[in-house]
Amino acid sequence: MTTQADTLTWLRSYFAENREEIQRDLFTFLRFPSISTDPSYKQSLLECADWLTEQVGALGFAVERWETSGHPTLFAAHLHAPDKPTLLIYNHYDVQPVDPLEEWTTPPFEPEVRNGEVYARGAQDNKGQCFYVLQALKALLARDGRLPCNVKWLIEGEEEIGSAGLAGILSERSNQLQADTLVVVDVGLRDRNSPAVTLGIRGIVTMEVTVTGPSSDLHSGTHGGLVVNPNHALVEILAKLRDEHGRIAVPGFYDDVMELSDEEKEQIAFDFDSDGYESMFGTKAIGGERDRTPLESAWTRPTIEINGISGGYSGPGFKTVIPAVAKAKLSCRLVPDQSPQKTLSQIKEYLESVAPDGITLEVDLHEGGGPAVCASSTSPGVQAFAQAYSEVFDKPCQFIMEGGSIPIVTDLAKASNSDVVLMGFGLSDDQIHAPDEHFGLDRTELGFLTFARALEVM
Amino acid sequence: MTTQADTLTWLRSYFAENREEIQRDLFTFLRFPSISTDPSYKQSLLECADWLTEQVGALGFAVERWETSGHPTLFAAHLHAPDKPTLLIYNHYDVQPVDPLEEWTTPPFEPEVRNGEVYARGAQDNKGQCFYVLQALKALLARDGRLPCNVKWLIEGEEEIGSAGLAGILSERSNQLQADTLVVVDVGLRDRNSPAVTLGIRGIVTMEVTVTGPSSDLHSGTHGGLVVNPNHALVEILAKLRDEHGRIAVPGFYDDVMELSDEEKEQIAFDFDSDGYESMFGTKAIGGERDRTPLESAWTRPTIEINGISGGYSGPGFKTVIPAVAKAKLSCRLVPDQSPQKTLSQIKEYLESVAPDGITLEVDLHEGGGPAVCASSTSPGVQAFAQAYSEVFDKPCQFIMEGGSIPIVTDLAKASNSDVVLMGFGLSDDQIHAPDEHFGLDRTELGFLTFARALEVM
Repeated sequence: MTTQADTLTWLRSYFAENREEIQRDLFTFLRFPSISTDPSYKQSLLECADWLTEQVGALGFAVERWETSGHPTLFAAHLHAPDKPTLLIYNHYDVQPVDPLEEWTTPPFEPEVRNGEVYARGAQDNKGQCFYVLQALKALLARDGRLPCNVKWLIEGEEEIGSAGLAGILSERSNQLQADTLVVVDVGLRDRNSPAVTLGIRGIVTMEVTVTGPSSDLHSGTHGGLVVNPNHALVEILAKLRDEHGRIAVPGFYDDVMELSDEEKEQIAFDFDSDGYESMFGTKAIGGERDRTPLESAWTRPTIEINGISGGYSGPGFKTVIPAVAKAKLSCRLVPDQSPQKTLSQIKEYLESVAPDGITLEVDLHEGGGPAVCASSTSPGVQAFAQAYSEVFDKPCQFIMEGGSIPIVTDLAKASNSDVVLMGFGLSDDQIHAPDEHFGLDRTELGFLTFARALEVM
Repeated sequence: MTTQADTLTWLRSYFAENREEIQRDLFTFLRFPSISTDPSYKQSLLECADWLTEQVGALGFAVERWETSGHPTLFAAHLHAPDKPTLLIYNHYDVQPVDPLEEWTTPPFEPEVRNGEVYARGAQDNKGQCFYVLQALKALLARDGRLPCNVKWLIEGEEEIGSAGLAGILSERSNQLQADTLVVVDVGLRDRNSPAVTLGIRGIVTMEVTVTGPSSDLHSGTHGGLVVNPNHALVEILAKLRDEHGRIAVPGFYDDVMELSDEEKEQIAFDFDSDGYESMFGTKAIGGERDRTPLESAWTRPTIEINGISGGYSGPGFKTVIPAVAKAKLSCRLVPDQSPQKTLSQIKEYLESVAPDGITLEVDLHEGGGPAVCASSTSPGVQAFAQAYSEVFDKPCQFIMEGGSIPIVTDLAKASNSDVVLMGFGLSDDQIHAPDEHFGLDRTELGFLTFARALEVM
């Protein structure tokens, strides 16, 4: 086995020597507007997948394009390390929408470096993280002509919309997916200088609530006091989702929620810098249940969030209208052992039970959610990545958790019979899913180093 | 005095003979996109005002264009009837915005007749009603070369945004405005076959509520459970505006609300066809306070309505975001003797008192509202219009009220020292302020007949 000092020195100089080409290729990747939720970007997703196929194929991987009910998944394999473990890497090439577009300093699909950070939609989530994996594999192959373990790489195109396409083909692709360790490269660190492997991510379910009142928009003078205003009905319904203690009021919602054991609590870095958070995000971290600490709330407790609400006139000036329709998009983050389907049903039933007379309530449950994921701190994969992080940063690696979700992970771990590792270099102020998303070039290098080194110590 | 039979026969044949020209001119009027709330339509408002100036001037009126802080007001006078009363007519040439544009069957500023109804923004409110006044004056002048009473005509350009410009010049224009009767031609009937003069309209105040949370949109996974979601804060705040009995929960809100006397209740046609309403508007008329009848609620009780709400992502698909900002536009309809300013302050104070920690609430109170208006059933003006309605329809004229608002009326009545008459031919399904606004050509004729006849019997 190559020693730590040898390999890190070599990798660092490789990165330095190829810096220009690396940035050029990263920018090419970021320029594809691969927004999976909006059908009008279909062609861009396909072009992005084609570009990736070419890049990964050039390394000597056999690359397959798996068609799904939605956008295709890429599957690449490099299996030339007999007696070595097999790693299944997970990334995604699709990105979130870009609204509100006017709040971007520079256009979301024209990457630009400012203060060492690359600004673009997908700069972090997940193209930036997918990209350092590509560079790590490329460097190891350039150095040795082979990889230190067997590598399978899944890069999907629907993570931001719930991975329904990939989920639908997992069982038929199960043979090809078999692996020892599934490494999901789509999470982050608590801060730039604290190496950490993630032991859990929350699950997610989403739904849309539509309140319909009159058959068309009505004048709020003539009809005010006659019809039930759908905007009012909607806010009154949604306000009942949580009680005054910040707890979700849906009956049964917490029934299957697992509390961490004392041992697990001990192991995980729950300490929180409230002032630092407030100065970074401009608001206090007091959005969770009143009796929980911030990171307990964000990592180990389920949520329900109104991600979008709209009804009536919101343009310039004023319009005295009672709208025909008001809508909201809701999502829940789930923790072990909440069932996505059961949670959705509970919420739908509850919303219907609190809907007032005079309106019609429709709750449209979306497919494609997924349960929470737990990783074991003692698995060989987690141990290897923790060692790599520790060597690259030259300090002990922490264990953390993450509030976000990657719905496919549980099913993918099952289909591949593998233990999960969750790793990455995101930071909470990377503005993912928001205007001015960014990712540091320094972290591209750290990701590259850590990923390459972990493959060696697997 | 010309007799009823003579004059109505003559007016009907005048209308029949000039039908083509009347419709052509009406369409010209409706084609100006005179949306007062949106600054980008400024030029269209001016062009519309110029066209009106030309039309009214051609009748022999002296027309002045009064500049205001906003869009100009037209003031026209025809004062050649010594010893006769002076009528001050009020109309407006501005219109509401047209969103949602995609719900219009034909473009809002390309008028089209379908089943005898003219479809266009402003077809009823208020160009259609302004237009039959113009035709009535034109016909009387064509017939007699003079008008049966002195006429002053005020046509303003900011009714849909609260009349702030006109309000600002009322005191300096007071001398010119002096009149016996102020006739506001901007209301309607309960149904097509029930002639009615309106004895009261509600007042209005408007405001905008802004909830600000984090300094930018955040990922609802990473930050869900940490930050207070502005969408949640907004719905929780707005849900507290009303209690479970449909009463507004703002302290002091009902303190100055005047109840009608038994005599007034007797005089006004409060009977209501619930089934007819439901089949016309697709929803039950149960939006008012639980212990009030529908028309009691719509005519004599104040309301608070959310006219617009927005926050986060409402486009196609889904975006798991916690928005930085969520907003709502609110309006109240006021009844005698509620003070607009006092009501606004009460609501602002209440909203601030129920705002949760972790967000910033801003309540922006708009200028330009106005109090409710009461007309007396025994004033000469109301009597004259009631007689004209009755003659034209050949049945008794009812007294009704109206839930909508014309904020300037109280101030205008004061400035002109006149008694108020509220008249018009709108119907509740004319879709004013909504897509597919329309007004019947038959009602153009009825308005023409009634208005002309009322001038004769003044």
